[in-house]
Amino acid sequence: MLKQPQLKYRPFAPVSLPDRTWPDAVLTRAPIWLSTDLRDGNQALIEPMDIARKLRMFQQLVKIGFKEIEVGFPSASQTEFDFVRLLIEGGHIPEDVSIQVLTQARSHLIERTFEALDGAQRVIVHVYNAVAPIMRRVVLGQDEDGIVELAATHAQQIKDLAAARPGTDWRFEYSPEMFSGTELAFSKRVVDAVTAVWAPTPERKCIINLPSTVEHSTPNIFADMIEWMHRHLERRDAIVLSVHPHNDRGTGTAAGELALMAGADRIEGCLFGNGERTGNVDLVNIALNLYTQGVDPQLDFSDIDEVRRCVEHCTQIPVHPRHPYVGDLVYTSFSGSHQDAIKKAFAARKDGDIWDMPYLPVDPKDLGRSYDAVIRVNSQSGKGGIAYLLEAEYGLELPRRLQIEFSQVVQRVMDDAGKELTAADIYGIFEREYGIGDAGASVVQPQMTELAGGAMKLSAEVVLGGWVGHVQGEGNGPIDAFVHALSARLGQEVRVLDYHEHSIGSGADARAVAYLEIRVGDVTRHGVGIDGSIVRASMQAILSGLSRAPVVVPQEQKENVR
Amino acid sequence: MLKQPQLKYRPFAPVSLPDRTWPDAVLTRAPIWLSTDLRDGNQALIEPMDIARKLRMFQQLVKIGFKEIEVGFPSASQTEFDFVRLLIEGGHIPEDVSIQVLTQARSHLIERTFEALDGAQRVIVHVYNAVAPIMRRVVLGQDEDGIVELAATHAQQIKDLAAARPGTDWRFEYSPEMFSGTELAFSKRVVDAVTAVWAPTPERKCIINLPSTVEHSTPNIFADMIEWMHRHLERRDAIVLSVHPHNDRGTGTAAGELALMAGADRIEGCLFGNGERTGNVDLVNIALNLYTQGVDPQLDFSDIDEVRRCVEHCTQIPVHPRHPYVGDLVYTSFSGSHQDAIKKAFAARKDGDIWDMPYLPVDPKDLGRSYDAVIRVNSQSGKGGIAYLLEAEYGLELPRRLQIEFSQVVQRVMDDAGKELTAADIYGIFEREYGIGDAGASVVQPQMTELAGGAMKLSAEVVLGGWVGHVQGEGNGPIDAFVHALSARLGQEVRVLDYHEHSIGSGADARAVAYLEIRVGDVTRHGVGIDGSIVRASMQAILSGLSRAPVVVPQEQKENVR
Repeated sequence: MLKQPQLKYRPFAPVSLPDRTWPDAVLTRAPIWLSTDLRDGNQALIEPMDIARKLRMFQQLVKIGFKEIEVGFPSASQTEFDFVRLLIEGGHIPEDVSIQVLTQARSHLIERTFEALDGAQRVIVHVYNAVAPIMRRVVLGQDEDGIVELAATHAQQIKDLAAARPGTDWRFEYSPEMFSGTELAFSKRVVDAVTAVWAPTPERKCIINLPSTVEHSTPNIFADMIEWMHRHLERRDAIVLSVHPHNDRGTGTAAGELALMAGADRIEGCLFGNGERTGNVDLVNIALNLYTQGVDPQLDFSDIDEVRRCVEHCTQIPVHPRHPYVGDLVYTSFSGSHQDAIKKAFAARKDGDIWDMPYLPVDPKDLGRSYDAVIRVNSQSGKGGIAYLLEAEYGLELPRRLQIEFSQVVQRVMDDAGKELTAADIYGIFEREYGIGDAGASVVQPQMTELAGGAMKLSAEVVLGGWVGHVQGEGNGPIDAFVHALSARLGQEVRVLDYHEHSIGSGADARAVAYLEIRVGDVTRHGVGIDGSIVRASMQAILSGLSRAPVVVPQEQKENVR
Repeated sequence: MLKQPQLKYRPFAPVSLPDRTWPDAVLTRAPIWLSTDLRDGNQALIEPMDIARKLRMFQQLVKIGFKEIEVGFPSASQTEFDFVRLLIEGGHIPEDVSIQVLTQARSHLIERTFEALDGAQRVIVHVYNAVAPIMRRVVLGQDEDGIVELAATHAQQIKDLAAARPGTDWRFEYSPEMFSGTELAFSKRVVDAVTAVWAPTPERKCIINLPSTVEHSTPNIFADMIEWMHRHLERRDAIVLSVHPHNDRGTGTAAGELALMAGADRIEGCLFGNGERTGNVDLVNIALNLYTQGVDPQLDFSDIDEVRRCVEHCTQIPVHPRHPYVGDLVYTSFSGSHQDAIKKAFAARKDGDIWDMPYLPVDPKDLGRSYDAVIRVNSQSGKGGIAYLLEAEYGLELPRRLQIEFSQVVQRVMDDAGKELTAADIYGIFEREYGIGDAGASVVQPQMTELAGGAMKLSAEVVLGGWVGHVQGEGNGPIDAFVHALSARLGQEVRVLDYHEHSIGSGADARAVAYLEIRVGDVTRHGVGIDGSIVRASMQAILSGLSRAPVVVPQEQKENVR
C-alpha cells in the first residue's frame, strides 16, 4: 500500500445540494423491484447457470413475487437467446410478470434482441451505452455530442422495431452506463435526449435506470446524485426512476435505501447480493429492512432458507454465515448476558406486542426460522469446543448446521450432567445421537445396477426403528435411488438438502463419514453414517436422519417386527 | 411473513436535526481505530479462539498497525484472564500499543479486571451498562435514576482502583449499551454523569463509545444521532467520541462512515466484519474506502491475503468471495465488454497517472494481489464450464482459487487452439498442467514413523525436475514433515497455504485427490495429486506445485541427474 494514496487516488466530488431533502425522508412503501439475478448476477459466475438452473431461478423469483425480471442478454450468446425462447414458448411467464432483456446500443444486437422476443406478452427492452469520461476517452473514442447521438439513434431504432410488433406490450428502459462515474449534467443531457425520442407520458412511462456501475463514494453522495437527477430530468412525471447499485465500497444496501429516499421509484439488484465483483445490491436485504420497519415489501421471504438453497444451487456460491437475515449465525447470541436478556424478554412478551426483543431485530419465525438457534452454546470454549474436539480427536469435520444441531444436544446433556465433558464423552453422545454403529437403523445387502441412460436401480433390506423390510427405487445415483426407494415405502417424500462426506484415517484403515441434512414433511434433521464405502456411509446417514425424525411408519410394520 | 408487518414492527424514529452538517462533510484523515477482534469478534464464534489463535491474531493486529486493541473480557472466564496475563508477562505488547479490556459495571467484575492488568504499561478500561428502555424494564428492573447512579458509582470505583495503581498509564472508556435503541436525551444524561466523575481534560481525555448494539435504522439516522450527541454532550473537548456499529441491516460500513462525518473521532470493529450475529463493522472495508479516496488509513493491508488467511484460521469462518477488497472474485470481470474496457484502459495508462480504471476501484497490486485474476474466463459457459465438466465427468471438485488458476491455463490453450474444447480435452490439459501420473515429479517409498509426543518423522526418495534425492524431516503429520524435509533440501521455505482433499470413485476403486496451494519465496502455486492413499496424494500435490514454480534446484543436482 502506498503511504501517500492521495497521489494516486482521486477523492470523490461532493454534490452541491444544500437544500437536499432525502435525509428527512422516511420510506413508507415498497419500491418497484427488478431482479437481475439471471443477467447481471449470472454473468458474474465462475460457472454461469445452465438452462435447468436458469429455469429454477426464474420460477423461484416468480414465487417470491417479482413482477419484473431481467432474464438475460439474448443477443450475447446462443444460450442466452435460447433461454428467452424457452420462457416464451414454454409458457413459463405468468400474465402479470414482465421479462426484461438487456442490449447494448448497437443496431445488430438490438435486431437480434427483438428476434428473441417474438410472441412475448410483456417485455421491457433495456438498452445502455457508456457515458462516463473514461469510457468516452479510452474505449469509445467519442465526444459528448457523439454519445448523445448514439443514444438517441438507438432509442429510435427500438421505438420503431416495437411499433412494428404490436402484439407485445413493450416498455423501454435506458441506462447511462457508469452513471456513478459521470458528470451529472452530461448524464442528464443524454437521458433527456433519449426520453425526447421515446416521448413517454404519465400513463405510459419509460424507465430511466441510474447505475452505480462501480461504487465510488459514500452512499450520501449517491443519494445526492439521485436527488439531483430526480429534480432536474425533463419529463420526470413520465419516468419511472430506477437505481442499480453495486457494492464495491460495501455500502450498496445503504446506497439503495438512501437513493429511494432521494426520489427513486424502482431498484435493480440480486438475491443475497450476487453480481459482478462485490455484487449487485442485495434486494432481500432491502426488502427485509423495510419489513422490520413495518412496511410490507410485497416480496415473500417466509421460507428464506428455501430461497437460499435455490440461490446457492444456481450460483454455486455459498451465502456467508453472517449475511443479514439469512446467514446461519445471524440470529444467534453466544454471549451469556445477551442470552439472559433474550430469555427474560421472551418471558415478558405477550401475544400482539410490538416486536421489541434485545439482539433480535426480526422475529426468526417470520422468515421460516425456528427459535432453536437463537440461544447457542459455546461454553466448551477454546480447545475444548465441541466441533474442535471431534475434529482433533476423531477426524470428524462437522458441517456448520450440523455443528449447531449437535451443540444443542450436547448442551442438554451438560445441563443434566452438570459437569465438564471430555472428548470421549462428546464422541459417545455423538454416536448415540446419530446411531453410529446402531443395527436398529441399518441397510443390508444393497444391490445396485446401472440402467441404460446412466440411471441407477437400487434394492436393499432396511432396518429402521424395529421395522425390517425391502425397498427399491431408481435415481441419478445411489443416494438419489435410495431416497426414492424410502419415499415410496414411507409414503412421504424424503429430500436431501445438504450433503458432505470426507475420509477419516488413511491408507487401508480409511473410512468415509457422510453427513446428510434431510427433510421429511416439514421436519429437517441431520443424519450421520460411517463406513468403509462412501455409498454405504451415505445410506446409513439417511437412515440416521430418518430415525431422528418423527416419520410415518411403513404399513407393514406389525407383520415385520422382528 | 406477515402481510401487515406494521402491526408487529415499529418504524425507527427520525431525529429532528434540520441543520445537520454531516451530509456536506468529507473525510480527510483516518480515525482512531480500535480492533475488537479478540473480544466482540471472539465471543461470536462457534469455536472461540484458543490461546495460540488469540496470540496469532494479536500479533497480526499489531503488524497491521492497530495502536488500540481490545483483548478480552478478563473477568468473564479464566481463559480470558489468562490471555491478558500472557500478553503482559510474555512481553507481547509493543510500547506504543494500548490494550483495552471490557467489563460490566459490577464491582466484583471490575476488581477482577484490575487483577488481570497488574503490571501492564498502557491500558484502556472499558466499562458498560445497559441503558435502553427494553433492558431497564425487562432485564434490570431499574428506573432512569437507578441507571445513572449505577453508571456513576462504577465509574468512581474504576477511577479509585486506577489511582491506587500509578505504575500503569490508565485510560477510561464508557459505553451506554444499546445506545442505538435508547432515547438520545437519556444517553446524554448517563454519559454526562460518567464524565462528571472521571473529570477528563483536553490533555487527558476519556473515551465515550456509542454502539449500535443492534442496527435498527438507515445509516443517516445513526449519523443524526451521533451528530446530536457530538453537539450536546458536556465536556466534549475532553472526550474521544467513539462509535461501535453492528451490521444487522447490512449498512454497518455506511453507518460507520457517516458517523465519522457526523463528528466521531474513533471507531471500533473487526477485520472483515466478524462479530455477533451479522458482525461488527468491517474495519478493513472502512480503511480501504479511505485509501481509495486518497486518504492514508494508517493501517497496512499491503498483503491483504495474508491478513485474510490469519482471520480465517483464527475464526474458522471463511471470507466470502464477494467481500469488498478481499474476496476471491472482487477484482474479476467476466463480461466481455468489461474486459475490453479494462484492457484498453491499461494500455492507455501511464506511470504516475491518477488511478482511473473502469471496473477496478482499487489497484489490486496495492493490496498484494496480482493482475492475473482481473480478466477471467467463463467462455465455456453453462454446462460446458471448466469446473463443471471436471466435476461432472471426472469427479474433481476444484477449490475456488484453483479453478481461477486453471481457467487461465485453459484460456491460453483455447486462444492458441481457437476451438471448442471437450471434457476430455480439458482433463488432458489438467493432467499435463499439474503433472498427474508424471514420474518426473514423484515420491518413492515414503517411510513414516511416529515419534514420542506425536510428531512424525518422514523420509522418502523424491524425483523432481530431473533431480533424484533423499529427503527427511519431522512435523505434526506427513504433509508438515514432508514440507519441512523439502524446505531443508531446497534451501528455501515451502509453505502450505490451503489444503483440500476428497475421494473420487467409490468402494474398491476409490482414490483421493489432493489440492494444495503452496508458497515458495513470493511465488504461490497450486499442485494436484491423485493416489489410492490420501498421504501419497498430498505429497504428489506438493511436488506438483513445486514443479510449477521457479524453484532453486538442490545443490546435488548435477551428481544426481539420471
